[in-house]
Amino acid sequence: MTRQEILKYVDHTLLKPTATEEEIKTVCDDAIKYGCAAVCIPNTHITFAVDYVKGRVRVGATVGFPFGYNVTEVKCAEARRALADGATEFDMVANICRIKEGKYDKVLDDIRAVREAVGGHILKVIIETCLLTEEEKIRMCEVVSRSGADYIKTSTGFSTGGATREDIALFAAHVSGGLKIKAAGGIRSFADAEEFIRLGATRLGTSALVIIMKNEEPGAY
Amino acid sequence: MTRQEILKYVDHTLLKPTATEEEIKTVCDDAIKYGCAAVCIPNTHITFAVDYVKGRVRVGATVGFPFGYNVTEVKCAEARRALADGATEFDMVANICRIKEGKYDKVLDDIRAVREAVGGHILKVIIETCLLTEEEKIRMCEVVSRSGADYIKTSTGFSTGGATREDIALFAAHVSGGLKIKAAGGIRSFADAEEFIRLGATRLGTSALVIIMKNEEPGAY
Repeated sequence: MTRQEILKYVDHTLLKPTATEEEIKTVCDDAIKYGCAAVCIPNTHITFAVDYVKGRVRVGATVGFPFGYNVTEVKCAEARRALADGATEFDMVANICRIKEGKYDKVLDDIRAVREAVGGHILKVIIETCLLTEEEKIRMCEVVSRSGADYIKTSTGFSTGGATREDIALFAAHVSGGLKIKAAGGIRSFADAEEFIRLGATRLGTSALVIIMKNEEPGAY
Repeated sequence: MTRQEILKYVDHTLLKPTATEEEIKTVCDDAIKYGCAAVCIPNTHITFAVDYVKGRVRVGATVGFPFGYNVTEVKCAEARRALADGATEFDMVANICRIKEGKYDKVLDDIRAVREAVGGHILKVIIETCLLTEEEKIRMCEVVSRSGADYIKTSTGFSTGGATREDIALFAAHVSGGLKIKAAGGIRSFADAEEFIRLGATRLGTSALVIIMKNEEPGAY
């Protein structure tokens, strides 16, 4: 794959708690320039980003980020507000507490409620693979497949680990009903990215690829 | 100070994304047994904990935890819902993005809105000192002092650092209007705790002190 092809899979992401409008502007400019799928940014910046990009790139919000243990009603309020602010993609964190309790019915209800809140827009469900056992990951492939979400996503990028090749292969083996896969966290090179795509991911959450492109521009430094 | 006196200052805290009801039960039992000020737990567990403790210890919720960049309306919805669920203390994270932009009016508005949402209940404002410059910390002492919140709090416990002696001393020098101080993150011993209290903290967010007590019980292992 060419770099240009790979960049189409990228959600160019800046979710650190200190992100400023100036940084968001740069993230948006870069995502547009390099043809990324979307930007994934803090909710406090959604209104600004939507106004700034004027439809040139999709703007993604987060829901229950990064711990997922907000109550469902609040996740839905957060999703609706981001939708009203102009976000068209939503990366929610599943209720990991309930996964650990084995209460998959509650995990499913939580996702379905957010699914309803965001209407037909793209919904990705982060399961934070680094905190789960293999059995929990497989169960979550089933749960998210039944939830009506569009993507299952590996990681927030703020826990003990990011996407692994093993997890993407596991997802690919266990998702059903057209559920797509987003790999996020720890994608540091185009070789990494291509490998995740080959294994079945169709979205990649990362900032590294755009940074590589920028650093290779004439006069980058 | 005796250990018993110190434990009265403690918000016994379990905020990891994998916390189960079983673990919350233990946290509540221990907080009651050792005379802690409150438990500080994930919002998904507030209803359960309130029902479980039956008034024997205060139950604290979080708002915009741990990144603080949720929009104000959603923070208020989260606070109101936790209040309705029976929480009587609220640890909110300030909008650090706006601190970094120098937009302290927005930071203040955000806190005041949550202040209104939780009525007369105890509101603590986490500023995540490890991410701020000294100037930003001082400005936040002023902002939080004017906001009507009850406490300024150092840390979420999930960023690059926790409470330091220097920060508590800085808070003590710059807060006004009766604003109290909560030290959180990295409090590992009773000696640490006593030092933070001596410097001006009147609440301590930690799980370590209760764990020390438990480990010294006869038959702990």
